[in-house]
Amino acid sequence: MLDTFENTYPNRDYVIEIVCPEFTSVCPKTGQPDYGTLTFQYIPDKRCVELKSLKFYLQQFRNEGIFYENVTNKILDDMVQLLEPRWIKLIASFTPRGGISTSVIVEHKKEA
Amino acid sequence: MLDTFENTYPNRDYVIEIVCPEFTSVCPKTGQPDYGTLTFQYIPDKRCVELKSLKFYLQQFRNEGIFYENVTNKILDDMVQLLEPRWIKLIASFTPRGGISTSVIVEHKKEA
Amino acid sequence: MLDTFENTYPNRDYVIEIVCPEFTSVCPKTGQPDYGTLTFQYIPDKRCVELKSLKFYLQQFRNEGIFYENVTNKILDDMVQLLEPRWIKLIASFTPRGGISTSVIVEHKKEA
Amino acid sequence: MLDTFENTYPNRDYVIEIVCPEFTSVCPKTGQPDYGTLTFQYIPDKRCVELKSLKFYLQQFRNEGIFYENVTNKILDDMVQLLEPRWIKLIASFTPRGGISTSVIVEHKKEA
Amino acid sequence: MLDTFENTYPNRDYVIEIVCPEFTSVCPKTGQPDYGTLTFQYIPDKRCVELKSLKFYLQQFRNEGIFYENVTNKILDDMVQLLEPRWIKLIASFTPRGGISTSVIVEHKKEA
Amino acid sequence: MLDTFENTYPNRDYVIEIVCPEFTSVCPKTGQPDYGTLTFQYIPDKRCVELKSLKFYLQQFRNEGIFYENVTNKILDDMVQLLEPRWIKLIASFTPRGGISTSVIVEHKKEA
Amino acid sequence: MLDTFENTYPNRDYVIEIVCPEFTSVCPKTGQPDYGTLTFQYIPDKRCVELKSLKFYLQQFRNEGIFYENVTNKILDDMVQLLEPRWIKLIASFTPRGGISTSVIVEHKKEA
Amino acid sequence: MLDTFENTYPNRDYVIEIVCPEFTSVCPKTGQPDYGTLTFQYIPDKRCVELKSLKFYLQQFRNEGIFYENVTNKILDDMVQLLEPRWIKLIASFTPRGGISTSVIVEHKKEA
Amino acid sequence: MLDTFENTYPNRDYVIEIVCPEFTSVCPKTGQPDYGTLTFQYIPDKRCVELKSLKFYLQQFRNEGIFYENVTNKILDDMVQLLEPRWIKLIASFTPRGGISTSVIVEHKKEA
Amino acid sequence: MLDTFENTYPNRDYVIEIVCPEFTSVCPKTGQPDYGTLTFQYIPDKRCVELKSLKFYLQQFRNEGIFYENVTNKILDDMVQLLEPRWIKLIASFTPRGGISTSVIVEHKKEA
Repeated sequence: MLDTFENTYPNRDYVIEIVCPEFTSVCPKTGQPDYGTLTFQYIPDKRCVELKSLKFYLQQFRNEGIFYENVTNKILDDMVQLLEPRWIKLIASFTPRGGISTSVIVEHKKEA
Repeated sequence: MLDTFENTYPNRDYVIEIVCPEFTSVCPKTGQPDYGTLTFQYIPDKRCVELKSLKFYLQQFRNEGIFYENVTNKILDDMVQLLEPRWIKLIASFTPRGGISTSVIVEHKKEA
Repeated sequence: MLDTFENTYPNRDYVIEIVCPEFTSVCPKTGQPDYGTLTFQYIPDKRCVELKSLKFYLQQFRNEGIFYENVTNKILDDMVQLLEPRWIKLIASFTPRGGISTSVIVEHKKEA
Repeated sequence: MLDTFENTYPNRDYVIEIVCPEFTSVCPKTGQPDYGTLTFQYIPDKRCVELKSLKFYLQQFRNEGIFYENVTNKILDDMVQLLEPRWIKLIASFTPRGGISTSVIVEHKKEA
Repeated sequence: MLDTFENTYPNRDYVIEIVCPEFTSVCPKTGQPDYGTLTFQYIPDKRCVELKSLKFYLQQFRNEGIFYENVTNKILDDMVQLLEPRWIKLIASFTPRGGISTSVIVEHKKEA
Repeated sequence: MLDTFENTYPNRDYVIEIVCPEFTSVCPKTGQPDYGTLTFQYIPDKRCVELKSLKFYLQQFRNEGIFYENVTNKILDDMVQLLEPRWIKLIASFTPRGGISTSVIVEHKKEA
Repeated sequence: MLDTFENTYPNRDYVIEIVCPEFTSVCPKTGQPDYGTLTFQYIPDKRCVELKSLKFYLQQFRNEGIFYENVTNKILDDMVQLLEPRWIKLIASFTPRGGISTSVIVEHKKEA
Repeated sequence: MLDTFENTYPNRDYVIEIVCPEFTSVCPKTGQPDYGTLTFQYIPDKRCVELKSLKFYLQQFRNEGIFYENVTNKILDDMVQLLEPRWIKLIASFTPRGGISTSVIVEHKKEA
Repeated sequence: MLDTFENTYPNRDYVIEIVCPEFTSVCPKTGQPDYGTLTFQYIPDKRCVELKSLKFYLQQFRNEGIFYENVTNKILDDMVQLLEPRWIKLIASFTPRGGISTSVIVEHKKEA
Repeated sequence: MLDTFENTYPNRDYVIEIVCPEFTSVCPKTGQPDYGTLTFQYIPDKRCVELKSLKFYLQQFRNEGIFYENVTNKILDDMVQLLEPRWIKLIASFTPRGGISTSVIVEHKKEA
């Protein structure tokens, strides 16, 4: 479902940052919705992610039961597989539950 | 009392941040309640801490007399023993007393 | 337990505002602690509330099970009975539970 | 689905404010999710709204297609019918779409 | 070009607020672009403004030379003619020029 | 020196707000420069103030020795004489001197 | 000790606001220093307060033991006696003690 | 179109930062305007960019259809060609579209 | 006057941060009071500073004439002598005088 | 014109930060005033800059025509010549002109 377009400046290492404050999924234990902000930062190699397809991809989690740690790692894996970026980082910050807020920060670097 | 669940992405070094702004204990000298925000940051190895059990664990200090420095170090030690994380940091920021605010920042790194 | 001292400027209508950001009680349904900020505003008549005794009075709720609406109204009633102020307002703002924050705002005016 | 409990201080006019920053529904035209913060302010008469049931009630809109103006008015109507409050106001602030943010503010006063 | 839809709650006086932070036009004197935020607040009567058409309508000013005061009054007039609202207010806040920032605030009330 | 242009919407009472954060004059007592932000709010009658001429007019005070209260009242008087506005308010907020900040707020209403 | 200068615009009702964030006195009970911000707002009649003398006047409280309520009312009384202003308000906001912050707001209006 | 002036301190490595919050171009896919803030940071070599010409240069993109990634890289390339700076960085932060915000960060270092 | 207590976790390098926003001394040149915020950060060795004694120690400067640079270095020296910490840093930020704010940042590291 | 006093702690490397938010000079091209904030950070060697003389020194630029880059470098050079500091940095942040804000950051390190 995720779409890409060609990186037209592949000779330069540069960073694209994408902030998605409207992420929502469902807690698999309680069935209650979770809400969070996803911040992607990546150095593209040959492909960049198309924003509209990213939006639709993230909406797939709207009614899916999945834990914070798993959803963050899974989305990073999907992005790595799709884009094969030189470097990518994902910061997922979820809203408080029971007075406690959680963030998960994952990172991937292409091997030389 | 602290519970864990399996880290399903052990091949990746990633950070989990947990912010608990509702920590309270009691000053052993004055008997007066102390209030603070605990921020945990850790790289899990085989286990992650379960959030609900963390909440109950922290509530155990609600009526316990203990100094800032001791409670911060003790909680870090408990987390280290429980999770054996690759790295963990705890920042405990307490509210002002007598016009003076105190934070305690402790850190532990697994030996290679 | 609440203590007062004499209002030495009774001929003037003036306002005293007291902000207590460290209020905590217990939810009678879940047994879980609640946290909030109490803001008092009042026009004293003959007596003003002594701050240290107010602190001790509020600490009495630390381990007591009581709902938001009840604790706010009860504290206002206690202050009215103690001070017989010309006017008093209490704003109680509690921290989020289940993604929802609640405030209760109560007010009392002395009859002419 | 919405639950109530008895107002134990009916002789006093006081305000309860409830902030729900995790509201989401679906745009009936585009099928895309909408996100917003609902702020309720009301003076209870005989009944107060139970917070957990309010959370579940609002979750019913999660996958429902409905316009900003309609959902705000409908929720106010449901609250009025349920609580028969002396006064109630609902401010619904939605996140930007196409660079434009919208809020809807509705109010109801009990007839004397 | 501006489109409307039916107000389905005409029996209630309620407020719709629309914030457009991406307004731009051209200064007729210098030919330089102006930038501002338009905030509409209105009580609908029979019709509400459709947001997408409002976006396109405001884009018409993108390359048009027009003064702050005139563009604000003209947009209000267009909205009044289109919606015949019970009340409408428009706050136009422009970015600084020569170290000076200007806002124009216009208002219209339907005659009884 | 102050210039005006015609108010093309004289049938409507509306407000123009102009914020000038770069005002500076000189303290007549110490010879030291003063700095402040001037905020004008006015309802135009037949004429509006031209912004560039306002900028030049305010620069005339750059090296002039004049007290806070006098400069604020004098500028208001000049604006009243120039524009004969239906209503005008000027808020002048000066930066701290000796740990003390001062604002002067003056207002003028046209007689009916 | 407090000095005044002539109000050169007595025909106009206007407001002078003076913010003093560096007020300090001593608690008569504990001997500990108190700190606060004093905000004066007044409409001058024939005289305005000279700022340097106000600074020296406030410094007289530096080592004086006096309660919040008394010091606020006393300073207002001194200002009223000195300036005979048409209206004056004093907001005194003190820093937290024992987790509790206090403000005292006093006001005086000249009789017609 | 871009103009330069001589760097009169070429013996010192120093940084010039230029923030342009009023950048706008057009999305080539939807034809809708994009808005963003451009932040330049560079160490000049022999030439510095003239600010007025930079403003006019950026206005050329006002009605041009170009993607975020391309416009950011293109502007950096133009600046590099013009100034041959020792180092330059450009951060382009665009406003949200479909609930998603994007920034592009590009950098260039002169070869030794 | 400064008191200490034993560091019960000497095997771990950890940081204690203490913020004192109510520091005041006197300018030896003008006799006018100075105000500032002192922020201590240190890694304890065998002893930690007792907070109440720190408060009293800092109050000793209340009426003492001493320059910014000297008071900051002197307090650091006293702390070093008292605690023999592994590392200590003191940031002293003073309020503006004549439109100019000053901070002094001093640091000490124990020799190995 | 710039005055110094002896550094009484020359054996320690420490930082003095001085923030001057009231800097103003004149654009040599347009004759219009420029406004900015100057932030100095330096490690003193034998001498420190006296603050009052710094204020008078900066006021010399009040009516002088000089470009951003030149005034920043010139002031740094004057400070270096006067103080011969171990290290010094100057950040000059100017207010927006034509929608564009500029900062100049210069630095000097004493040769060993």
